[in-house]
Amino acid sequence: MPRVVDHESRRSDIAGALWRVVERDGIAAVSVRSVAKELGHSPSSLRHYFTTQAELMEFALASLLDGARQRLESRIARYDPDEDRIAWLAELFKEGLPLDGRRAAEVEIWMALHRHERDGGSLSQAMRREWRESQQLCRFAVATLAHGAPRDDMAELLDERLELETTLLHTFWDGLTLDASSRPSEVSPELIDDLLTAYLRFLDERLHGGN
Amino acid sequence: MPRVVDHESRRSDIAGALWRVVERDGIAAVSVRSVAKELGHSPSSLRHYFTTQAELMEFALASLLDGARQRLESRIARYDPDEDRIAWLAELFKEGLPLDGRRAAEVEIWMALHRHERDGGSLSQAMRREWRESQQLCRFAVATLAHGAPRDDMAELLDERLELETTLLHTFWDGLTLDASSRPSEVSPELIDDLLTAYLRFLDERLHGGN
Repeated sequence: MPRVVDHESRRSDIAGALWRVVERDGIAAVSVRSVAKELGHSPSSLRHYFTTQAELMEFALASLLDGARQRLESRIARYDPDEDRIAWLAELFKEGLPLDGRRAAEVEIWMALHRHERDGGSLSQAMRREWRESQQLCRFAVATLAHGAPRDDMAELLDERLELETTLLHTFWDGLTLDASSRPSEVSPELIDDLLTAYLRFLDERLHGGN
Repeated sequence: MPRVVDHESRRSDIAGALWRVVERDGIAAVSVRSVAKELGHSPSSLRHYFTTQAELMEFALASLLDGARQRLESRIARYDPDEDRIAWLAELFKEGLPLDGRRAAEVEIWMALHRHERDGGSLSQAMRREWRESQQLCRFAVATLAHGAPRDDMAELLDERLELETTLLHTFWDGLTLDASSRPSEVSPELIDDLLTAYLRFLDERLHGGN
C-alpha cells in the first residue's frame, strides 16, 4: 500500500517541521501557515493533512508520545543489573524533562495542551494517552523499586498502596516538569538530578522499610 | 494622605474586577478594556493606573499574594495543638489549590504568569515573590513537622537536608496544582486530599525515622 506509506511519511515530515518551529520560535508560532513555510510548501498542501492548529497539535503530541515510548523501550531493553537502579530510573524520567532543545520543545507542546484541555479543548484523546503512558512509567518505576529489578508483569502489583505511590510520583514529576520549564535559570540540571534522585531514594526506602 | 488612600482603594477595586473577569470568562479575557467594562468605566480611566495587560497581571499576582498571605497568617494564628498537624498543614496547602471558583481563578493567573515568565516576560519580580513565599510555606511545614509544632524561628532549621525536603515538597505542590487545574474532572478534592495527606505523612515519617 504505497499510498498509505507516503501519507505516513509525509505526516512525519510535517511533525519534524512543527518541532523545528516550536524549538526555534516557541509554541505561539505554530500554525498551518508557519509549518507549511518551514517545509517549503503552500498552506493549502498542508491542509490536505491538517485543517486546524488543534489537529496539528494533537498530531504533534501523538508523535511526541511515539518518540518517547521508543526511547524508553530502548533504555529499558538495555537494562544492566549492575547499574544503580535509582540512577537508571532517574534517566528514564529525565526523558520527559526539558533538558535540551528537543525536550524543551516537547514540554512546550505538553504545557500548551494542558492549557487547551483546561480551557475546554477537544484534545482529550491524546492527553488521556499522555496521562496513561506517564502513569504507566511511574507504575513501572514503583514496581522496579519494589521488586529490585524491572518487571513487565505489573498487574499483580496494583495494590492500593503501590497505586498511591504511582500517583504521588506522577504528581511530583509533573511539578518538576513545570518548574524546570518555567524557571530554567534556577532549576538547573544538577538540581533536577538531586530532586529526582532524592524522591526515588525516599520512595525506595518506603517500599522496603515496611512503613 | 487621602489621595494615596484613594489610589490604593481604586487599585483594589480594579483587582476585584479583574478576578471577576478571570473567574467568569477565563484568563484570555483579561485586558485593560474588559476590566474597565467590568467596572463600568472607560478604558482610558483605567489606563491612569495600568497601561498594559502585563501590568494588570503583575498587580493581580501581587494582590493574590497579599490575600493568600493574610489567609495563611490567620490560619496559623488559630493553630490548636490538639488538632492533627498533618490535616492542619494540608489545609494550608489547599489554600493554593483550585478547589473553588476564587482559587481556580488564582491558579489561572499563576499558570499564565508561569507561561509569561517562560516566554521571556518581565514579570520576574512578582513571580520571584510568589516562589519565595511558596517556598517559605513549604519550609514552615517541614519545620512544623520536624519540631512537632509551628515555629517561627526557622533560620536555625535550614540545614541541607531540610532545605532539600522543602524544595521536594514545593515541587510536589506545584505538580498537584498543575494537575488539579488541567484535569479537574479526574483530580477530585478527595484525591487532592489523599495525595497531600500521604505526602505529608511520609515526610513526617522521614523526619522522625532517622533515615
